[in-house]
Amino acid sequence: MTQVGVIMGSDSDWPVMKAATEALAEFDVPFEVSVVSAHRTPQRMLDYATTAASRGLRVIIAGAGGAAHLPGMVASATVLPVIGVPVPLKYLDGMDSLLSIVQMPAGVPVATVSVGGARNAGLLAVRMLASGDPALQERMARFQAELEQLVLDKDAALQKSL
Amino acid sequence: MTQVGVIMGSDSDWPVMKAATEALAEFDVPFEVSVVSAHRTPQRMLDYATTAASRGLRVIIAGAGGAAHLPGMVASATVLPVIGVPVPLKYLDGMDSLLSIVQMPAGVPVATVSVGGARNAGLLAVRMLASGDPALQERMARFQAELEQLVLDKDAALQKSL
Amino acid sequence: MTQVGVIMGSDSDWPVMKAATEALAEFDVPFEVSVVSAHRTPQRMLDYATTAASRGLRVIIAGAGGAAHLPGMVASATVLPVIGVPVPLKYLDGMDSLLSIVQMPAGVPVATVSVGGARNAGLLAVRMLASGDPALQERMARFQAELEQLVLDKDAALQKSL
Amino acid sequence: MTQVGVIMGSDSDWPVMKAATEALAEFDVPFEVSVVSAHRTPQRMLDYATTAASRGLRVIIAGAGGAAHLPGMVASATVLPVIGVPVPLKYLDGMDSLLSIVQMPAGVPVATVSVGGARNAGLLAVRMLASGDPALQERMARFQAELEQLVLDKDAALQKSL
Amino acid sequence: MTQVGVIMGSDSDWPVMKAATEALAEFDVPFEVSVVSAHRTPQRMLDYATTAASRGLRVIIAGAGGAAHLPGMVASATVLPVIGVPVPLKYLDGMDSLLSIVQMPAGVPVATVSVGGARNAGLLAVRMLASGDPALQERMARFQAELEQLVLDKDAALQKSL
Amino acid sequence: MTQVGVIMGSDSDWPVMKAATEALAEFDVPFEVSVVSAHRTPQRMLDYATTAASRGLRVIIAGAGGAAHLPGMVASATVLPVIGVPVPLKYLDGMDSLLSIVQMPAGVPVATVSVGGARNAGLLAVRMLASGDPALQERMARFQAELEQLVLDKDAALQKSL
Amino acid sequence: MTQVGVIMGSDSDWPVMKAATEALAEFDVPFEVSVVSAHRTPQRMLDYATTAASRGLRVIIAGAGGAAHLPGMVASATVLPVIGVPVPLKYLDGMDSLLSIVQMPAGVPVATVSVGGARNAGLLAVRMLASGDPALQERMARFQAELEQLVLDKDAALQKSL
Amino acid sequence: MTQVGVIMGSDSDWPVMKAATEALAEFDVPFEVSVVSAHRTPQRMLDYATTAASRGLRVIIAGAGGAAHLPGMVASATVLPVIGVPVPLKYLDGMDSLLSIVQMPAGVPVATVSVGGARNAGLLAVRMLASGDPALQERMARFQAELEQLVLDKDAALQKSL
Repeated sequence: MTQVGVIMGSDSDWPVMKAATEALAEFDVPFEVSVVSAHRTPQRMLDYATTAASRGLRVIIAGAGGAAHLPGMVASATVLPVIGVPVPLKYLDGMDSLLSIVQMPAGVPVATVSVGGARNAGLLAVRMLASGDPALQERMARFQAELEQLVLDKDAALQKSL
Repeated sequence: MTQVGVIMGSDSDWPVMKAATEALAEFDVPFEVSVVSAHRTPQRMLDYATTAASRGLRVIIAGAGGAAHLPGMVASATVLPVIGVPVPLKYLDGMDSLLSIVQMPAGVPVATVSVGGARNAGLLAVRMLASGDPALQERMARFQAELEQLVLDKDAALQKSL
Repeated sequence: MTQVGVIMGSDSDWPVMKAATEALAEFDVPFEVSVVSAHRTPQRMLDYATTAASRGLRVIIAGAGGAAHLPGMVASATVLPVIGVPVPLKYLDGMDSLLSIVQMPAGVPVATVSVGGARNAGLLAVRMLASGDPALQERMARFQAELEQLVLDKDAALQKSL
Repeated sequence: MTQVGVIMGSDSDWPVMKAATEALAEFDVPFEVSVVSAHRTPQRMLDYATTAASRGLRVIIAGAGGAAHLPGMVASATVLPVIGVPVPLKYLDGMDSLLSIVQMPAGVPVATVSVGGARNAGLLAVRMLASGDPALQERMARFQAELEQLVLDKDAALQKSL
Repeated sequence: MTQVGVIMGSDSDWPVMKAATEALAEFDVPFEVSVVSAHRTPQRMLDYATTAASRGLRVIIAGAGGAAHLPGMVASATVLPVIGVPVPLKYLDGMDSLLSIVQMPAGVPVATVSVGGARNAGLLAVRMLASGDPALQERMARFQAELEQLVLDKDAALQKSL
Repeated sequence: MTQVGVIMGSDSDWPVMKAATEALAEFDVPFEVSVVSAHRTPQRMLDYATTAASRGLRVIIAGAGGAAHLPGMVASATVLPVIGVPVPLKYLDGMDSLLSIVQMPAGVPVATVSVGGARNAGLLAVRMLASGDPALQERMARFQAELEQLVLDKDAALQKSL
Repeated sequence: MTQVGVIMGSDSDWPVMKAATEALAEFDVPFEVSVVSAHRTPQRMLDYATTAASRGLRVIIAGAGGAAHLPGMVASATVLPVIGVPVPLKYLDGMDSLLSIVQMPAGVPVATVSVGGARNAGLLAVRMLASGDPALQERMARFQAELEQLVLDKDAALQKSL
Repeated sequence: MTQVGVIMGSDSDWPVMKAATEALAEFDVPFEVSVVSAHRTPQRMLDYATTAASRGLRVIIAGAGGAAHLPGMVASATVLPVIGVPVPLKYLDGMDSLLSIVQMPAGVPVATVSVGGARNAGLLAVRMLASGDPALQERMARFQAELEQLVLDKDAALQKSL
């Protein structure tokens, strides 16, 4: 059953956002992907948000750039945790995207990750799901051990190259 | 008949936003005021936007702070021109509000004024209405002449005080 | 009859600003284009502004970069609504252009759009004109419906590509 | 059983961070509070993080200011989702805190909320827990309905005051 | 004969700008003060600028805040050197004023001083006048020697207080 | 006789700074060029500054990037007006250079131009010299008339191209 | 024998800078304090720097604000390690001070601490001296243990207060 | 015996960080290089820091980007002076790295150099070591004299090329 909904305002966000889905796939978390625009399909976006929980989704990942309203608007119309990915646009290096997503008013949180940090959005969704799932938690622990090993390998390679 | 809708996400924005209504009142432009929150009443906000034109409104002024989504979301669901007022919050001096409002994607413009610039939002609405109304345009011309006179008076007062 | 004046400080702004004229053309709104520099032709700029309304213009779109004074100066000498487009220059990603345009003092508003957002400037002008023109308002509604359909098409294409 | 650990680098962060615990208390989510400093008790911080999951915690909320390393360091040593609260210090309005928390490298996400947004950190933790708990999800839905009602009440009060 | 024109957009800038006149007075440089607004008296501003040189002025000091167009516009209509003082307003700490003044396009320079740096604007005007006036240059040298002595005195006082 | 000293901290600044010398050459103002580093030749820099006036220089133009100390340090050891050019480096788009140059303490002004604005530095030096030289002032007036004509020509060309 | 020179551009920096001397005193490191201004006593500053090592100083701590040139200029004329403290001024929250100090060109480093971080400047000087002094290193270790204990005490106090 | 430990969070930082080792090599200071990640090998990082002094290291240079926690965390667990190098990542030009490193809380300083300033980190380490080593101090003095000569050579070359 689909557990994570990955949405973005435009297919031009997909090159950034697909990293979220790759992370989910590494942990065998079933997900769906949709283009849902806060500004071009506002009612469809609200409908997506209001029905997400009842459709069985457990986490929503939303990416947007500039005046990035998608994550916050979706969070306003669902009880699910929403993860926001600030997509950097041509100017301002994603600082506008970041502030538009993270500075939500009291009452409606968005779990914001770094500028362009879609992979971490996927991993954060896994951590949320793993929070009540020992087996998935175990996989996250293994993933972290592999990250550690990767650093040790890089260290060894660097030592050798000097 | 009400011509301008002035909306804000919270009554805490009213001390900033009332300056917009004062400007409208100076030009005898009929307006309405509502608290409409993008994040706390998302569906009501969309309904406000989608019915605004048919109710006879001709311009919407929307003020919001932080991750300020109200102006852009309203603009996405109406054909009316929407004026956005970045309301400064406790931190960041309104820079987050400004970027969240002005950096709208192609297709859905918001006419953004300065941080805390609600009075100018009112005056901009008057200019929009005056664009097809010679009498109102004439009043705007008189208003500008008064501004000019005010500067001359201040200049004279400063000269005298030296 | 020409309804919108599109001006810019230099022909080097044209690659950005032509998107405003394209948006106007899509809605069959007659426009004129001029190079008018606040800093190199100050008197000519003031003359342009002071005669704009009497020449029949109803909206002015002004693009400028850096210490971008054109939109605000034109707004100071006309009763028409003025839309400002922050043109990004080589450094600072247009943040200087944005602040120089949007932070106008009380009395003289400029309707500011996003950095490089000339297309939205054109669409905002259309919304202003449509505010008193049901037929144009209807076209804007169709335009928004097409935007919505475009998102649905992109969504379908993305689904298929997965 | 304690489900959420709320930690902060110094007791001077408590005036900001207690809002997180208030939100948790409103939803009857059991929590613990600790002062754990990344820079003054680094080993104790790591030990807190590495044992958090086995002690039964399901979410960690970490607040920090300036070079705010606590949320990211804790996230590096636990499989639990970690929520970061950028605490504003005397200078820079929390922009340093925000960037130090949100800009985590790929592999180790921190769910960042707004500058000073501890209440939202608490609500985000509730959403995460509710994601697998229909009863808690129902309470969140009621909470959102109350937020909506609050806006309607404020709107009515504002209307009356005009 | 008046050598320096000190202008500002509003009498609210006077508390900042009077420091410029105090510096001029210390060097017995004759000056005049005027309120001249780029946005509220645009034609008067241009007239001020175009006649300044023929009236005998040798330097213009212009202070403005926010979208600070006065220094640049005056510079565009005179051959005199123009010194710009970024006046800080309520928000953004004068960063908008600074960028609006300093980022002038090639062809029309403004000699910009620090945010709120009106005293230095006065001293810079003195240096410009002194550049062709050995007696005034000598006074500037004495002024700098006094600054140096002031530091020595402060150093001695600090040593004594320890 | 050499009237303007153009200095820079490194020959890597020359591609930016030569525009200052080109502007001076257009007005037949004699100048000298030197590499003088605040950080690598501090004593030589001070000596340059302290002897500049007695050698007959009337204006100094100093370009520097990053922690750009050259303009301010030279200004501290001469009575001449010093023009600072913020040279943009690889990161931060010259914002560090701008603030390091413009934010001088009371007593020691630097006439700062835009990021990379060396041409304007040259033109500003010409304006300073012209302030006491009617013939040079006349040439500056012609230069400005040519700038105006250039805009008219560009306007005509743009009109034709539409 | 005096080991650390603590200097600042003005006695107005002393309220910030004295925290550096307090930290030195806690470790019984002998120090001297001087007001030495880069901009008002440039030659005296260079002389201070060039003689510092031969006078027996081993570290220099320099605080400055705005266009903060003191740390970098002193570093350019001594072989000693120089620690820079960005002193925040009235505007810009010390961001100008920070960039003016930290962004030094290759060849001349300044060890920069946080905005207003004079206490850490003192502690950094102690670490530098301790690097070759086991007894002082031992004291630093005890100091860090006390910091740790302080956190534990605060934690206990917070627990009790809940 | 190894005196300086150069560490970085990832081998992708090596192209920036190797400049630190080149500077150390020019002064014949023995160093070691390791990949040590705050976020992927947190315990290993703490162990590195806690044993550094007893292994004979005298200075640690740590480079990191984004939410750059490595320098500060290492500083928290060692008595050695730690030099932090803000490594610029794909977005934000290293501003996030700089603030994450420099804004350390009182008690735990990091000697921060410029964005990408690894060469200066190496030179700063040399200055620290030279502080108690007259021979090394002498070499630093020669190095500075060579820098000075380099400027003189560049000046001569520029003069010739004009």
